[in-house]
Formats: sequence, C-alpha cells, structure tokens
Amino acid sequence: MIRSKIISTGAYIPTDKIPNGYFLSNTFFDADGTLIEQPTEMVILRFKAITGIEERRYAPQGITASDMGALAAKEAIIKAEVDPESIDQIIVAHNYGDMRYLGAPRDMVPSVASKIKHKLGIRNTSCTPYDIIFGCPGWLQALIQADLSIRVGAASTCLVIGTENLSRVLDYTDRDSMIFSDGAGACILQRNREDDNGIINSLVRSDTCDEIDYIFSGGTNNGTEKEPRFIKMHGRKVYEYALKHVPLAMKECFDRSGERISNLKMVFLHQANEKMDEAIIKRFYALYEINKLPENILPMNIALMGNSSVATIPTLLHQVLKGDLGSFQLQRGDVIILASVGAGMNINAITYKW
Amino acid sequence: MIRSKIISTGAYIPTDKIPNGYFLSNTFFDADGTLIEQPTEMVILRFKAITGIEERRYAPQGITASDMGALAAKEAIIKAEVDPESIDQIIVAHNYGDMRYLGAPRDMVPSVASKIKHKLGIRNTSCTPYDIIFGCPGWLQALIQADLSIRVGAASTCLVIGTENLSRVLDYTDRDSMIFSDGAGACILQRNREDDNGIINSLVRSDTCDEIDYIFSGGTNNGTEKEPRFIKMHGRKVYEYALKHVPLAMKECFDRSGERISNLKMVFLHQANEKMDEAIIKRFYALYEINKLPENILPMNIALMGNSSVATIPTLLHQVLKGDLGSFQLQRGDVIILASVGAGMNINAITYKW
Repeated sequence: MIRSKIISTGAYIPTDKIPNGYFLSNTFFDADGTLIEQPTEMVILRFKAITGIEERRYAPQGITASDMGALAAKEAIIKAEVDPESIDQIIVAHNYGDMRYLGAPRDMVPSVASKIKHKLGIRNTSCTPYDIIFGCPGWLQALIQADLSIRVGAASTCLVIGTENLSRVLDYTDRDSMIFSDGAGACILQRNREDDNGIINSLVRSDTCDEIDYIFSGGTNNGTEKEPRFIKMHGRKVYEYALKHVPLAMKECFDRSGERISNLKMVFLHQANEKMDEAIIKRFYALYEINKLPENILPMNIALMGNSSVATIPTLLHQVLKGDLGSFQLQRGDVIILASVGAGMNINAITYKW
Repeated sequence: MIRSKIISTGAYIPTDKIPNGYFLSNTFFDADGTLIEQPTEMVILRFKAITGIEERRYAPQGITASDMGALAAKEAIIKAEVDPESIDQIIVAHNYGDMRYLGAPRDMVPSVASKIKHKLGIRNTSCTPYDIIFGCPGWLQALIQADLSIRVGAASTCLVIGTENLSRVLDYTDRDSMIFSDGAGACILQRNREDDNGIINSLVRSDTCDEIDYIFSGGTNNGTEKEPRFIKMHGRKVYEYALKHVPLAMKECFDRSGERISNLKMVFLHQANEKMDEAIIKRFYALYEINKLPENILPMNIALMGNSSVATIPTLLHQVLKGDLGSFQLQRGDVIILASVGAGMNINAITYKW
C-alpha cells in the first residue's frame, strides 16, 4: 500500500490587519437592494456574533495570488529540506486568478501554478504546474489529486498550494464582504516509504442542482454594478447545506478509513463561519451519539484571519504545527480529518494519520 | 494493465463565421505601440499566408464557455450511450472562465465544470466536476488526469471537456487577434475492459523561466488599455520554442510507448498556426530520419476554425471521426499521437491506440 504524507507546510499571512471597524463607514444593502436601516455598528456586532470574525488580512495592493502562493511554497520547501528541482507537480487551487487590485482583470494566462514555478526559480521541465478551480475546497481537492498521482506512481513529491486574493472581489455594500480575506497556504506531499502514515482515504461530494448558485459571482447589492465582479452567497442556504451534508460526508469518509472515532484527534475544517463550524462538529459527533466534544478537537483561526477560501485549511494546519494555536498540538500517529465546503457546491474530506 | 479509451466525442462549433475580411477596417499596432503602416489588406494577406487561417468562429454574445462546453458534452454523452448519472468526473479545461462579452469579468465561481454539470442536469453527488488551467494544452492535460484516475481505480467514466471563449479577450489593435476563435470539444473516456486499446502513455513538459511570458495577459497594442485584459503572445518566441521542443517531446513520448514509427497513423496537433504545425511534423519525422511525410498524417482544421485553444484537438478529433475531413479516417487499432503546446509554456503528448 502506497501512502502519501505531508512532510512540511508553509503559509503567507498578509501583514495588513483589517479590523471590523474598517467597515464602520460602509452602507450595507440586502441582496434585493433594500437599504439596511440598522446602524452599521450594530450590523458589525451582529456579524461578529455569528461569524466570530474580529479582523481579517488583506494583501497589499499589487501583491497577487501567485505572489502569496510562491511565498507560502518557499517556506514549505525550506522546511521540507527537499531540493526544489525534485518536485514533480505544483498544483495550485484558487478561484479568481491573479488580481492586482479591487475589480482588476483576473489573470490566469499563464496559469497561477506556472507563475509560482517561475517565481520559485524551478528549472526542471518535468515539474508539471497546473491550477485547479473547485471553490473553497480547492486546496483539499488538490491534495486528493496529488495523492492520486503519488499512488499511481506518476509523482513522488508534490507541492500543493491554496492561494486567494478575495479582497479584490468584495462588494462593500454587502455585509458578507466582511467575511473574506487574503492568504496562501502550502504543503509538500511526498510518497511515504517508511510507514503507513499519511492520507488514508478521501471522499468528494458535489451538488449542482438548486445548489449551483448558493455561492456565485454577482453585482453589487446597491445596484450600481450589475456584472458578476464580486463573490456573493446566499448565506442561509450555504449554512443549511453545510450543516446537512458536511457531517455526513465526514462520517462516511472517516468510517471507510476503518479508524475508531475515539482515536480522532483533531478536525481541520474550512474556516467559513465560527458558528457554522461549531455546529458541524457537534452534528458530526452526534452521528456517533457523542454529545460531549473531545477537548481541542476543532482548531480555529477565523477570528483573526477571516475566510481566505482555499488558503484556510493549509494556513490553519501550518499554525497548529508551528504551535501558534496553544493547546492544539499534533503528535505522530494522530488521526485527523480535514474537510471543506464551498462553491459548486462541493464538499470534500480526508482521513489522515499524522 | 488498465487502459482508458475514448468511447465518444462531441463538439460545439459556433455558427457565426468570421472571415478575414471582418478585420479590414482594423488599425493594427506592433507590441511597442508603433502603428503598422502597411495597408490592413496586406497585413491580412500575410497573416493568411503564415497561419493558414481564412475564417474563425465566434460564439454569439451571451453564450459562454460553460454553455459551449455543455453542448459539446451533451453530444459526447448521447454518442457514448452512457447514462449521464454514471459519469464519475467532469474535468473542464479553459483559461478565461465564462465571459459574456468582450472585456466581461471572468466568472469561475462556481467552477465552469460545476456549471456544466448543472446544465447537463446530472444529480449524482459522486460525480466530481473541476476545472483545470494549463494553457492551450489543457484539454490533453485533463485527458491525462482522467486516465490517471481511471488507472488508479478512482473513476471508470470521465467526461473531459475543453471550452474557450477567446473572442472575449481580443485586442483588435493586435494582428494576433485574428488567430483566435471560440469553441468546445469533449469526449467520454472510459476504463477499457475489453482490449488494450486506449491511452498507451503520455508526457508533459513545462518551461517557466524565460518562457513564462511567451503567451501572457496584456493591454492593447495601441496603448489605450494597460490592464491585462487580453490574450497576447510573442509569436516569434512561441514559434521557435514549439519548433525546438514539441517534436522532441512527441518523439520521447512515442518511443516510450514501444510502438514503431512506421505504424503511426495520424498526429492530432494543437491548431495554433498552419505553418508551425507543418514544421513541427516535418521536424518530428526528421528525428526518425524520415524526410517524406506519410500521407494523411496531419489533419488540420485551422483554416476554417482558427485557434480555439483547449478546444482545437477534441474538435479536430470529432471532425475526423465524423468523416468531415475527407481522407483522414481512423480505424480500430490505429496508433496516433495527440500533442499540444501553449501558455506556461507547457507541452504535452499522448500515444494512443484507437
């Protein structure tokens, strides 16, 4: 049995901290164009109560997804102590390509992965860079694809990156604009020749009927721009969808791994909304008739990081490994779940033995 | 040995024919902003002599990449007589997402693949749709990935689509704008349980040093728009790169397949430029010290189709299988090569037993 293992991680967390107060002078509208009469201060307090977000990070103007992805990748490569020229594949998950400023054209020619390979100075012509578009679960999906390539013998070492510049697709007349942030995370996934640690199994779910526009590209809520320049969502529907399907998908994936629920050490969930993530983990354990959550089961960074789409999980993993999240500590042999949900709608989950 | 086989193809060829005369009133500039003083009529004649392009197809306004991709996919599904609900993966290669008109925002949220799954009405939640960005060789790369999934047992039936709306990213002050067109091609790739026909092997090459901006996103040649809204290329460098590396990549791929060059029946090359494709095939055979090309070795549709990026090879294959290209006929057991080159720079090749 061939397994692939994360041998290092890296992250680029933009230094520009954007506190909730940044939005105090905004005027918000509902999706139907109705002015929200509530004072913006109250809107922000309510937003904080639901999402848990206190601040988020924006990349400096001119810094793009490929810039951030290259920085995260560089850290992962240095930590792994691998020769960059030995990397077989560079898989980059994103959703908007490179954007230099709010409303800029989305640039993916050449691909973001090609640009990152260029920025890393990798000359090996057998190193294949490509982008994958899969909504917020894109980084996990890239990890699943890298694992596939390793298991079939098409690759030994893969650089898997999630990078997103969501601050460039924000409709500031929409309350949801406060959710999103910029960032990048990366890991080196390598064929494990020593033991059976690594990716045990994975599961993917896609719902594209009524769910197709739960997260979508749209104009501004105040009606000044009709074109699909901005990230938009039907928040209530996303919440209900996630709560209904993510715990079941996690359980199906985990049960197929053959691992015991009592051994599950940690769950790395896409950082979309604090209350939603807490509800998902509770419902997941309820499926096993466990009503008291294990301690330190759900690391979260959304309060200070916001939702950086494909970058949230690799960034969170990187922070835990660095010891930045206090009591959350991974030990060799720990069984964990990584799971995500996003535009499509797509859900994916991985059972992993650390 | 598990092999995967193309069991059907489909294409969407837009009905709007754009003859070279369409550009007669254009004023062209060089990349450095210099007005091209030669009469436009002469520019067009020279363009025709080099590229072989007489006309190209543009999708009607409002028809996007996902619309075209869904139409091509529908044809492939019907021809294959497979239950659409049995499709395990929908892999869509494109480079610009959905664009409704020239200069429109590029929409990939949700992914083009998710939108196509929606348009096909597929409800199976285990059918995974994702987009791949890999320049013009994206469709072949998607085929390579589908083959990987089939060989590792992660999928049995894949829908592989290439779709592109290049008419929405044209700088009409650039002569190169005359090259590009719109279209979509698709195939059903399935695990072959009967014989050893199908994909024998593949090869991928990526050059991202100086080559990173041979094909890129840029502003207009006349300087009125600086932002990277348009497809641009350094044509001479692309030509030299392709001529140097594509024949060698094809030979390396073909030689590794163990097949004999005398048995090679046809080469499906990315339709980028008639003269370039002819030079590539000549140099490829020269590597085998063969100076007289076999008859009917290089089907071409560029004269009437232009360069529709990821859509050219599946469309060409579809036309040959339909018998639309006269003397070009594929028989069961024929050994062929499919090869492409494009932004990245990326090159890929597949040896295939029909």
